Amino acid sequence: MRSDIEIARSIEMKNIVDVASEYGIDADDLEMYGKYKAKLSEDFLKAHEDKKRGKLVLVTAINPTPAGEGKTTTLVGLGQAFKEMGKSAVIALREPSLGPCFGVKGGAAGGGYAQVVPMDELNLHFTGDFHAITSANNLLAAMLDNHIQQGNALGIDTGAIIHKRCIDMNDRVLRNIVVGLGNKTDGVVREDHFVISVASEIMAILCLSKDMNDLKERLSNIIVAYNFKGEPIFAKDLKAVGAMAALLKDAIKPNIVQTLNHSLALVHGGPFANIAHGCNSIRATKIAMGMADIVLTEAGFGADLGAEKFFDIKCRKAGLSPDCVVIVATVRALKYNGGVAKEDLSNENLDALKKGIVNLEKHIENIKLFGVPVVVTLNNFVSDTEAEVSFIREFCESRNCEFAVSKVWEEGGKGGMELAEKILYTLENKKSHFTFLYPDDISLEDKLHTIATKIYGAKKVVYSPAAKKALDRAKALGFDKFPICVAKNQYSLSDDPKKLGRPEDFEINVREVYVNAGAGFVVAITGNIMTMPGLPKVPAAEAVDVDDNGDIVGLF
Amino acid sequence: MRSDIEIARSIEMKNIVDVASEYGIDADDLEMYGKYKAKLSEDFLKAHEDKKRGKLVLVTAINPTPAGEGKTTTLVGLGQAFKEMGKSAVIALREPSLGPCFGVKGGAAGGGYAQVVPMDELNLHFTGDFHAITSANNLLAAMLDNHIQQGNALGIDTGAIIHKRCIDMNDRVLRNIVVGLGNKTDGVVREDHFVISVASEIMAILCLSKDMNDLKERLSNIIVAYNFKGEPIFAKDLKAVGAMAALLKDAIKPNIVQTLNHSLALVHGGPFANIAHGCNSIRATKIAMGMADIVLTEAGFGADLGAEKFFDIKCRKAGLSPDCVVIVATVRALKYNGGVAKEDLSNENLDALKKGIVNLEKHIENIKLFGVPVVVTLNNFVSDTEAEVSFIREFCESRNCEFAVSKVWEEGGKGGMELAEKILYTLENKKSHFTFLYPDDISLEDKLHTIATKIYGAKKVVYSPAAKKALDRAKALGFDKFPICVAKNQYSLSDDPKKLGRPEDFEINVREVYVNAGAGFVVAITGNIMTMPGLPKVPAAEAVDVDDNGDIVGLF
Repeated sequence: MRSDIEIARSIEMKNIVDVASEYGIDADDLEMYGKYKAKLSEDFLKAHEDKKRGKLVLVTAINPTPAGEGKTTTLVGLGQAFKEMGKSAVIALREPSLGPCFGVKGGAAGGGYAQVVPMDELNLHFTGDFHAITSANNLLAAMLDNHIQQGNALGIDTGAIIHKRCIDMNDRVLRNIVVGLGNKTDGVVREDHFVISVASEIMAILCLSKDMNDLKERLSNIIVAYNFKGEPIFAKDLKAVGAMAALLKDAIKPNIVQTLNHSLALVHGGPFANIAHGCNSIRATKIAMGMADIVLTEAGFGADLGAEKFFDIKCRKAGLSPDCVVIVATVRALKYNGGVAKEDLSNENLDALKKGIVNLEKHIENIKLFGVPVVVTLNNFVSDTEAEVSFIREFCESRNCEFAVSKVWEEGGKGGMELAEKILYTLENKKSHFTFLYPDDISLEDKLHTIATKIYGAKKVVYSPAAKKALDRAKALGFDKFPICVAKNQYSLSDDPKKLGRPEDFEINVREVYVNAGAGFVVAITGNIMTMPGLPKVPAAEAVDVDDNGDIVGLF
Repeated sequence: MRSDIEIARSIEMKNIVDVASEYGIDADDLEMYGKYKAKLSEDFLKAHEDKKRGKLVLVTAINPTPAGEGKTTTLVGLGQAFKEMGKSAVIALREPSLGPCFGVKGGAAGGGYAQVVPMDELNLHFTGDFHAITSANNLLAAMLDNHIQQGNALGIDTGAIIHKRCIDMNDRVLRNIVVGLGNKTDGVVREDHFVISVASEIMAILCLSKDMNDLKERLSNIIVAYNFKGEPIFAKDLKAVGAMAALLKDAIKPNIVQTLNHSLALVHGGPFANIAHGCNSIRATKIAMGMADIVLTEAGFGADLGAEKFFDIKCRKAGLSPDCVVIVATVRALKYNGGVAKEDLSNENLDALKKGIVNLEKHIENIKLFGVPVVVTLNNFVSDTEAEVSFIREFCESRNCEFAVSKVWEEGGKGGMELAEKILYTLENKKSHFTFLYPDDISLEDKLHTIATKIYGAKKVVYSPAAKKALDRAKALGFDKFPICVAKNQYSLSDDPKKLGRPEDFEINVREVYVNAGAGFVVAITGNIMTMPGLPKVPAAEAVDVDDNGDIVGLF
């Protein structure tokens, strides 16, 4: 079997100028990064990003399992399928993070015959957006500590610093550190923390900003710390905003690449859905909607995390109204949710499937809470049996969901046509009655309670004393109109990754709460979720190399 | 008076494809980064980098002062001058570091009417080379700490870790930190340090590597730590080399940009000369020599640091033999060396000039030790008087140095023609008898003694106990054939930045010694030199912004 990178390399890419021209983008509208990557110019963005011509389809999934679901692969395959069908469609994805490429997760550019390319460049530095975010984040941190060192005129309480340094690397020893050791000239000693760049508030801001002015406004409002009186100190108080904006000048322009059949893919921004809001940039989605009749986008991990934040954060901030949701599942993942061990997933097991399908059931119910029509797709594996597929098809159709098997991994666009037809049918025949899960004007606790009970199926929310205190402060400072961005493990609907299927009778434990006043939401950290991953015993990095032709090998 | 960025923006850039074509580079040989930046393709590099057609001119300077010398400005102006004269010439510069742009130093792309452009992009992310170096460096660090966390099969002594994390930011609180705090899953607690990315061994390796194979070989040999038996642990032992090479795949290709009169400039690699070896990449210099009759390059700070390391490290590793050296001085800087306060430098003061010219004298003598003909140039200021200039001219000519005033800051290429003529005269009429300062096969102590006494004018070298021990270990491990890379303050020939002019009767204090076995040199840290700068009371970042046209302002 050929690896993803071998398949990717076996198909000759077109110059991105030629790909773009089929979508009405002139060469002058592009800022090239080599022959196969480009950013859209500000002029092009201004001219087309408010047209709202296209219908919006969200591709989400059941809770991920070690068996693999293939949400991004499905999305990419749909982009290819619509192109083969001659339909006007554009896909909008998130940029992969460098750190996890070298850890367990590997790359994130689809797979098999449904990939965006060049996959190696996409998975490594791409067009430098994440490096720009990391630099802007860490310039703010350096200016914060320098302010304290140079006399601390703002009276910053070093015990109440919120802004953390970041790095795009899985590096667990940076989770908890002490900085400023040494002599007096080496800074003030304090506890500090690095998060992975995808968890940085600046990543969220980049993804939620309409344009440079909006970006600057949001950067201004980042709360970096509190002073000794308990008042927030903002990035603007440190005079850091202009320089951060300069660092992000190119990063706020969406990137374009191509899929394996040369359909256009927008790839921009990449917050993780377990520790951040999990959606690609508003700018990319909006420009896609200005360019095509159908826009397909993804939200990270399962629908409990990605889709909920897509609706309640991204759509709310951007004024978007989605028309259809695709939920990706696999027979294997549903059986895993039903208790089958990873090595036994290739055997037909209808009992386990019946047991595990409750996970899919819950996600279907959840999407219906938002009023959006659902299409379910099974990302096909050769081990899937007809009985298993039929069971799932009937399960979905009896719940008024369209259903299709997707074979894009094996067949590329052709393998996605059945699913594409079902999406078209839904867009034409089922009306979306999109609504948010909760209104702006209920309390932060009520918002969290709503998410936890309605989406996760929890009994109630339990707060640590620190989280309770932080919530009270957020309210006192007037941040209670913000939506909530929950950080939660992706494997379970609960905050315990071991509780698969559709857990019941559990509590959601909120450990930590902080305000991302620039992004415009309140973050609630639940369970043991961490904002800095570690590397596994054998990091994926060990297999990566540059071969004698100068090509990267071993990326998956 | 117009700021550098205003001047830069007032002159319309050409598409880099058109600039390159005048130097025999086809569009196909370029990897574009927007319209004005490009990397040279591996194919082009392989075809031309070993031709050694051009003569090699090093542009260096007296010790820098707060008055400003303008070494890079002179180099860029010479590139413009040779183009106006219709000569085949290419300049090769270092890439600016992001961190210091936001501190005191500002940008580094020349100044006035002698600049490389686009200066804002050059000073910020450019083509991402430094981000790639930072990522590769920090991947190695993460894999090192992960190895320890996962059982430490190599028996790494956490008290003897050499490899440091890096960041391209002036961030003093990261100089001395403790990592790995928290729970058992958060890593092993140890002391750690961040250096600025320009001080990373990987920066040096990038600048000294001939090609991808050489890069991988050098990365393999990085000593990351010692084990409990005192044996070195290399990057290859951590299986980190392939992934690091993948991260550096594009970064090892030289970049091209243009000057204000559209002459070609190679800009690649950027180790600082006070804390590293201070020269642009060997690949850039060699490809320039394959493309043009005259190649002009720079080495950072004064000739005591930049030029010495250019000769003894870069030329030694690359097999280069320089044909001419230009020493840049200013009347103001020489008067400053003669004891005049910064605010009085505009007044004629021949006594101070006579007193301060000993600094120039020492640098002229030093270059002659290497057997290379010298041209001295005064970078002109309006306050310079005829008497002052005449005095310096006679001083230089009596020492068999050609002399010219340079007015490139004010006049661009035209203002550099007199200097260009003197360089041409020297190349045609004075033969270089280039020799290294010391041979490979004397001891490390003798090498350091030779540099300190002959170049700096010191009495002797004094070692800290730790430095002595590290030297003994380097010898025992067989690294005594390496040249020395001295880290020393740039302001004085001594290790005390306050001793201006030509200090005598001083000692050089070596605080720390370590082996950069990948780069292939032994680093000696002297005096109080630090490998991580801090920000000043009012960081330059505070003035930087993006204006309503989307242009960056306030960079200088």
